[in-house]
Amino acid sequence: MNQASSFSVECVSGRARAATLSLPHGQVKTPAFMPVGTQATVKALTPDEVEASGARLVIMNTYHLWLRPGPEVIAAHGGLHEFSRWPHAIATDSGGYQAFSLAERVRFSERGFEFASHLDGTRLLLSPEESMRIQGLLGSDIAMQLDVCPPGDAPPERLRDAVACTTRWAERCLQSKKAGQALFGIVQGGTDVELRLSHAEALAALPLDGLALGGFSVGESREAMHATLGAVASHLDPARPRYLMGVGTPSDLLHAIGTGVDLFDCVLPTRNARNGQAFLVSGRLSIKQARFRDDQGPLEPGCACPACVAGYSRAYLRHLFLADEILAHRLLTLHNLCHYGSLIADARAAIVRGEYDAWAAARLAALDPLEDAGA
Amino acid sequence: MNQASSFSVECVSGRARAATLSLPHGQVKTPAFMPVGTQATVKALTPDEVEASGARLVIMNTYHLWLRPGPEVIAAHGGLHEFSRWPHAIATDSGGYQAFSLAERVRFSERGFEFASHLDGTRLLLSPEESMRIQGLLGSDIAMQLDVCPPGDAPPERLRDAVACTTRWAERCLQSKKAGQALFGIVQGGTDVELRLSHAEALAALPLDGLALGGFSVGESREAMHATLGAVASHLDPARPRYLMGVGTPSDLLHAIGTGVDLFDCVLPTRNARNGQAFLVSGRLSIKQARFRDDQGPLEPGCACPACVAGYSRAYLRHLFLADEILAHRLLTLHNLCHYGSLIADARAAIVRGEYDAWAAARLAALDPLEDAGA
Repeated sequence: MNQASSFSVECVSGRARAATLSLPHGQVKTPAFMPVGTQATVKALTPDEVEASGARLVIMNTYHLWLRPGPEVIAAHGGLHEFSRWPHAIATDSGGYQAFSLAERVRFSERGFEFASHLDGTRLLLSPEESMRIQGLLGSDIAMQLDVCPPGDAPPERLRDAVACTTRWAERCLQSKKAGQALFGIVQGGTDVELRLSHAEALAALPLDGLALGGFSVGESREAMHATLGAVASHLDPARPRYLMGVGTPSDLLHAIGTGVDLFDCVLPTRNARNGQAFLVSGRLSIKQARFRDDQGPLEPGCACPACVAGYSRAYLRHLFLADEILAHRLLTLHNLCHYGSLIADARAAIVRGEYDAWAAARLAALDPLEDAGA
Repeated sequence: MNQASSFSVECVSGRARAATLSLPHGQVKTPAFMPVGTQATVKALTPDEVEASGARLVIMNTYHLWLRPGPEVIAAHGGLHEFSRWPHAIATDSGGYQAFSLAERVRFSERGFEFASHLDGTRLLLSPEESMRIQGLLGSDIAMQLDVCPPGDAPPERLRDAVACTTRWAERCLQSKKAGQALFGIVQGGTDVELRLSHAEALAALPLDGLALGGFSVGESREAMHATLGAVASHLDPARPRYLMGVGTPSDLLHAIGTGVDLFDCVLPTRNARNGQAFLVSGRLSIKQARFRDDQGPLEPGCACPACVAGYSRAYLRHLFLADEILAHRLLTLHNLCHYGSLIADARAAIVRGEYDAWAAARLAALDPLEDAGA
C-alpha cells in the first residue's frame, strides 16, 4: 500500500460493507458503480451528467487510448482528467482484456501480449511495464495490473498458469508503477474456488492498493459466478477495496454487494441505452415496442433522473429512438446511469442501517425475473 | 393577419431591421436564426441547450412528423411543445419540400402532391388542406403554406406556374388553417426579380402573418441569390416578418439581413457539426485535421459557448470525432448553434446602434473567403 489511496470501512451489514475510498481526485463512497468511459468519454454524456448520476469514479480504457489518441497527447494535457474534463477519480484498466478481444493475431508470452492494432495493424507489445508506463501517462487515480484472463471454459492447467503469470506480472507492475498512482491486483482462477483463494492470498501479500476479481462474465453461468463470489469475495483482504470487474446487471450487483464486493464497472447501463433498453425497478423496458407509441408517461414514474424529471414521454423517446436521434441515446443513458447510481446509493444506505440482506432480497423480489434475464 | 402573431419593427439601419415577433409561445427578437429540429429534436441537443444558444424559435418538419410518429400522437400530448419539451415558439414547414426531395414517385397536381412515403411506401396526398390539418395537430406557432418549389434551373414557364399555384394554395391554406396559428406565405420565382416582386405583391394582398422567400439554395449561384435578395427583400410588406428559408452560411445571413430579411433557418450549424466542422469568426475549422492532434486550445478562444467554456480542447474534440463518439457531435453542435446565436445577436445590436452595414462589412472582412466557401 502507498499514499495514493486509503480505504476505510465504516459499516458492515452481513458481509456487505459501506466504506470510503480516498484517491488523489476525491473520495468515493462504496459500494460504488463506475460508468465506463472507454474512449475518455462516458458514451453520450458530459462529465456534468455523469456526476449527476452520483458517480465519483469512472473507468477508462488503456488499450483504446494507447492506440488513439496516444498517451503522450493526453499526458501533454496533464492527464485524463484535464483531457476529458472529468474532475473526479478515474481508474484505467490494463489493456490486457482488449489485447485479447480486439487485437489481431495475439501472441502471449511471459513478456506480455504481442499483437496487431485493430486500427492499423501496427505490431505492439503490451508488457506489464508498458501498461504501467501508459497508465502513468494517462494519470489515472487507479491503475490496474496487466493480467492473464483465460476464457470461462479454460482447462485447469491453463487457469493455474494464468494465475501464476498474473502474480508475477503484479510484481512487475508494482516495480514499474508511477508514484502517487494506486495499483490494484487482479485475482483470476475462473470458477475454481481453491485457485481463487490461493491467488487472492498471493496477491494480498503484495503492497497492492486493492484487489479485483477478474475473469467473470467470460462465458460461465450466472449461477457459477454468484456461487464463486459467495465463496471467495469475503476472503479477500478486508482492509482493501474489492472490485468485481465487468459485472453486471442490477441483480448481479445486489448479489455481489452481499458477498462483500465494493466496486463495479459494466457497460450495460450505457450500451443497453443505445440499444433502446431502459432499466426500471421492476426490470427492463425496450423503448422500441409498439405498446409505447402513445404512452405519455415517463420511463419510470417517480424517477429523479433528468430525463424523467424533464417530462420526456415514452412515446417521445420511442419516436426519437426509431428516428435514430442522438437525444434518444442521451436520455436513455442518463436514465440508466441514474438508475445504477440510485441502486448503489440505496444499497449503501441499507448497509448503514444494518439491513442490507433484507433490503436486497426485497429489491430482487421486485425484479421481474423475465425482464432481467441477461444482457 | 390575425391575433396569432404580431410584429413590430423597433429600429432600422440601412435596410436591416430589428423587430419583435410575438407568438403564442413567446416573443422572438429579430433578426433571428431558427435551429432545425426535423424530427421534433434539434439533433444532438436538449431544449435547454438550444435555448442557451439564444434561440427562441425552432423549425420542425411536417412531412417527417406526419409519417412518424404521426400528428395524432403529438396532438394527444398537447402538441409539439409538450411532446418535445421545447417551451418557446415553433414553426413548422409545410412538408412540400420533402414531398419533392425524399418521397418516391411524386405526382404534382392542383390538388397537391401525391407520393409514396420514404419509410414504407404508403400512398399519400399532401394537399394545402392536409398540410394545414397536420400543422394544426402539431400545434406550431407558425405554420407555413404548402408551396411549389421548382429547381434553380427551371424554365420561365414552370417558374410562373409554380408562382400562380403557390398563390392559389396560400388562399386554400388560409381557409383551412387553425385559429390561433400564424400562417406565412411563400414567395417563389427563382432568380426572376419581376416574378418575385409580383408574387410578393399577390401574397401581400392576403391576410398572411408573414412572407417567406422560398426557392433559394436550390442550385442557383450564391451571387444570383444575393442579387435577387437585394432586389426583392426590401419590397416585401415592411409590416410583416420576412423569412428566408433554408439559408445559409454566416456570410449569407449577414448579406440577407442587410437586404431587410428578419428570419432564417438552416441545417448548416447542426449538420456540419456532425461532419466535424466548427464555425469560427474567421471561417470554418475541420476538427478531423491532423494539425489539431496536440492542440490544447478551445475551438475558438474567447467563445462563450458551453463547449469552449468547459475547456474541451481541439485535441480532445478531434479524438472524440475520430472515435465516433456522440459527445463530439454534441459539443460541435452546441458550439455552432451558439456561434449562429451570437452572430445574429451581434447583428441586432449593430442595427440598434444604427451601424449595421459597417459592422457587417467588418464581420465579412474577418471571414477568410476560402474558409467560408459553401457547405
